[in-house]
Amino acid sequence: MRKLLIALVVLAAPVAAEDKPVPSPIEIVAAAPKGDWVAIAPTDLLVMDLAPDSKGKPRRVVIQLMPAPFSQGWIGNIRKLAAARWWDGLSINRVQDNYVVQWGDGEAEDKAKAKPLPERLTRVPETDYVATYGELNIKEVPPETGLYLSPIGGGPARFFASRETVQSDLYAPIAIFHKGWPAALMRDHETRVLKTLIWPVHCYGMIGVGRDMPPDTGSGAELYAVIGHAPRHLDRNIALVGRVIEGIEHLSSLPRGTGALGFYESAEERTAIQSIRLASDLPGDKPLPAYEYLSTESVSFAAYAEARANRRDAFFIRPAGGADICNIPVPVRRVN
Amino acid sequence: MRKLLIALVVLAAPVAAEDKPVPSPIEIVAAAPKGDWVAIAPTDLLVMDLAPDSKGKPRRVVIQLMPAPFSQGWIGNIRKLAAARWWDGLSINRVQDNYVVQWGDGEAEDKAKAKPLPERLTRVPETDYVATYGELNIKEVPPETGLYLSPIGGGPARFFASRETVQSDLYAPIAIFHKGWPAALMRDHETRVLKTLIWPVHCYGMIGVGRDMPPDTGSGAELYAVIGHAPRHLDRNIALVGRVIEGIEHLSSLPRGTGALGFYESAEERTAIQSIRLASDLPGDKPLPAYEYLSTESVSFAAYAEARANRRDAFFIRPAGGADICNIPVPVRRVN
Repeated sequence: MRKLLIALVVLAAPVAAEDKPVPSPIEIVAAAPKGDWVAIAPTDLLVMDLAPDSKGKPRRVVIQLMPAPFSQGWIGNIRKLAAARWWDGLSINRVQDNYVVQWGDGEAEDKAKAKPLPERLTRVPETDYVATYGELNIKEVPPETGLYLSPIGGGPARFFASRETVQSDLYAPIAIFHKGWPAALMRDHETRVLKTLIWPVHCYGMIGVGRDMPPDTGSGAELYAVIGHAPRHLDRNIALVGRVIEGIEHLSSLPRGTGALGFYESAEERTAIQSIRLASDLPGDKPLPAYEYLSTESVSFAAYAEARANRRDAFFIRPAGGADICNIPVPVRRVN
Repeated sequence: MRKLLIALVVLAAPVAAEDKPVPSPIEIVAAAPKGDWVAIAPTDLLVMDLAPDSKGKPRRVVIQLMPAPFSQGWIGNIRKLAAARWWDGLSINRVQDNYVVQWGDGEAEDKAKAKPLPERLTRVPETDYVATYGELNIKEVPPETGLYLSPIGGGPARFFASRETVQSDLYAPIAIFHKGWPAALMRDHETRVLKTLIWPVHCYGMIGVGRDMPPDTGSGAELYAVIGHAPRHLDRNIALVGRVIEGIEHLSSLPRGTGALGFYESAEERTAIQSIRLASDLPGDKPLPAYEYLSTESVSFAAYAEARANRRDAFFIRPAGGADICNIPVPVRRVN
């Protein structure tokens, strides 16, 4: 019951404090200074061109790959697969509503028809589903700085010494934005060492590595994008490698498959992949724009996250007082 | 720091306790006895028939309307609109990725072209965004009963005296499944009375009432369905009236609108609505099957919710130890 009462006080506070209109999350992002934005290297962008739609319109999906310490074994494989043009001519084979879109070799189950994988792909152990964050160093930050969040489930607002924004979470002890990515943290219990583990989390638009039952069987050749409510139960059970930063509508609006798990029942239903390339390997006549993400260690991002959790722009009459990490998407923009 | 350590113990427990395979959430639902299922009355089902797709296939969306104490003012209007055949010939006008699909009168903004609403629709006050739950009566239930959840953010597992399953929440003091619906609870702070407020929450597939800026301007004529990550910040800011129980793929796979907020930029892009009727008013030659939902007060539902929060079926190597209420969709099935 104590928890309930504390949460009520937090809930009531923002309403009472509001006398004048405050900027919306979008306005906060629009006002962020140039220095709060981080360029995404073309070597970290994977560009998937699907066959044009029924009206002949091109369908390009742009994916940002994760930085270290996350999932670099699988990402290395993905770079090799793209360099080998392995996905060219393959297809999207599965679209399950409120869950995932999956692509790769539609004939992978049939050894006689399966497309051979490039040589020297790495077999990545399941231990790599999590990374080491380092020593946990939480300090309290006074509310006057504005650099804080007041999530309902999480007690007082806190910042990491690194200025990374943290969030209450229901799937892990704490959620955090780390190097531009939504992630979760916990102490490493098994080793009995005060090491902190960090792993990326399954939000809308995230890209993961399909696998068979043994947890080290995902190579990166079978990829999926989340197109529904965050399936956070998959965290630490399957590898995440990136996120869609443009063109997700070309995946999320595809017809749903009617077979088990949303697989298409016939090859005719599949959408063909023309090519998947790193942006740095695209031919010169098809340039990709430059992209930036809002630094998750910036003051602008902290204000944006706070505003997402406490909507006070004109439409809203009751700010929630909290938000889950997947309801605070990291802003990404085209630069040119 | 205390919270972090407690959560770790909860996380570690299910793994250590597992020696044999346990049923998956789907298997638990499949094994639920007949008595745990509740029939949905045809008078509570709204049937939307869209124009056939490009291959001539019918597109039917079945919506379950909420029971009291939720949103009955708007639902009364929706019954009148359906009886008046008001939506017939109107259209889906907005599809915003990872957010909502919205339908109604595409010309509503233009007074000269707008379709007149039926007479005697009720203007519902914003106070009706929340309902009264009654006296809060939490009691501890011993874990041995199996009737409990161990959400990470929420401390010890608890049940309401009514046997309703509760969940930790980040947007409200507590989340609860009430009469088959995902909802949230808080003490009524403003009246200083120990009354408890309850309101339905925005999960994937939920149906809401579009409105203009004043919070009492939604009649029920403009409806939306959630097709992305749960936009829980809308809770208590806009009315929810139901959920899609079949055919959501006919909404979620529609082309995204390219105008502001995902509105279609031309009338040609809109999808036509052939008719919207209560199932009880459908012509006899187009019968609807009967539907049931799994009682959220049943032992089966509690076990299902627990299994969703602690996945131990074969694919999973690390159960999360928690789940948000929108990641525990209430099971609905066709009976015939």
